[in-house]
Amino acid sequence: MASQEIEALSGALARLPGLGPRSARRAVLWLIKRRETALPQLLNALTQVQELLVECGVCGNVDTSNPCGICTDHRRDQRSICVVEEVADLWALDRARLFTGKYHVLGGRLSALEGVRPEDLTIGSLLDRVAQGGIDEVVLAMNATLEGQTTAHYIAERLEGAAVRVTQLAHGLPVGGELDYLDEGTLAQALRARRPVG
Amino acid sequence: MASQEIEALSGALARLPGLGPRSARRAVLWLIKRRETALPQLLNALTQVQELLVECGVCGNVDTSNPCGICTDHRRDQRSICVVEEVADLWALDRARLFTGKYHVLGGRLSALEGVRPEDLTIGSLLDRVAQGGIDEVVLAMNATLEGQTTAHYIAERLEGAAVRVTQLAHGLPVGGELDYLDEGTLAQALRARRPVG
Repeated sequence: MASQEIEALSGALARLPGLGPRSARRAVLWLIKRRETALPQLLNALTQVQELLVECGVCGNVDTSNPCGICTDHRRDQRSICVVEEVADLWALDRARLFTGKYHVLGGRLSALEGVRPEDLTIGSLLDRVAQGGIDEVVLAMNATLEGQTTAHYIAERLEGAAVRVTQLAHGLPVGGELDYLDEGTLAQALRARRPVG
Repeated sequence: MASQEIEALSGALARLPGLGPRSARRAVLWLIKRRETALPQLLNALTQVQELLVECGVCGNVDTSNPCGICTDHRRDQRSICVVEEVADLWALDRARLFTGKYHVLGGRLSALEGVRPEDLTIGSLLDRVAQGGIDEVVLAMNATLEGQTTAHYIAERLEGAAVRVTQLAHGLPVGGELDYLDEGTLAQALRARRPVG
């Protein structure tokens, strides 16, 4: 006898990645118990995101302004662009303040299986940004997956002839990685890319 | 460089049971990508729940009306009350249409560890409902945990002398249970409560 409203909220929550029907129902009950505190907070946060967030027309980041805070930040290195697959990847790199240049979000990765072609990604606008000049380096920060690396190779090829240095993230042992537990692919990459000590 | 609004939504979602900070961030990105479809749906469902749901003054169920749909349903058996710990338990029993009488939600279980005393639960209003008469049976449907069973025993004691039959859910092998994999407690209960065949 869960009412229609509860079913609707359960359904909407269950569609979120990471929540199934059962955990969504638990979340609904949790929210109903906190009708005066947590529920209005969540409602307010959702409304803010709904009303204020826009996609940056330059880099594809999601922010309250267009162009986004990163694109308009003049303290950042204007001469390098880090290309990532998704906004989440941008956040992951930027959370740790690891990269001080600008970003470019592709919006996905090339995939024959899922039918994602180059024109489905923002590769064209990346080439435009590079063609406008003023860029020294393009860092390809795709995931170390087959599709990520295919995308990186494709972009590197398209950037051939442009007057920029094209680099990509190093592949090798992750911090804390133990040889005995790592897959052969990672070991092969680490061995192939071995560097002189000191 | 996730904006303040995104952080706020991440935080609000991460407080839901079943979602941590990382999965909340994934959910936020998922929602941002679906700003036109899934986000308004979730927003609308939350608003409806926020505005319409009330706690039933009779049984403690959560519904759009007070008294709730179950309490006002005259096709239901008016003479039996099923006592459960939480609203979720009521839903679990009612989803399968297993019980056709009324319910009573305690709002928790007695717990010395968590400092939950009888007066923190709705035991008083249950006794009132029984005292008003017209009730034949009270089914104690507490969880088969130490605290659930303590609560059941306490309520059974308080109902002694009232002109009602007090019953509780059977304990034994769950459907599909294999002796080899069940705990000793369950086996002991099943053996103790064994019944004549046929």
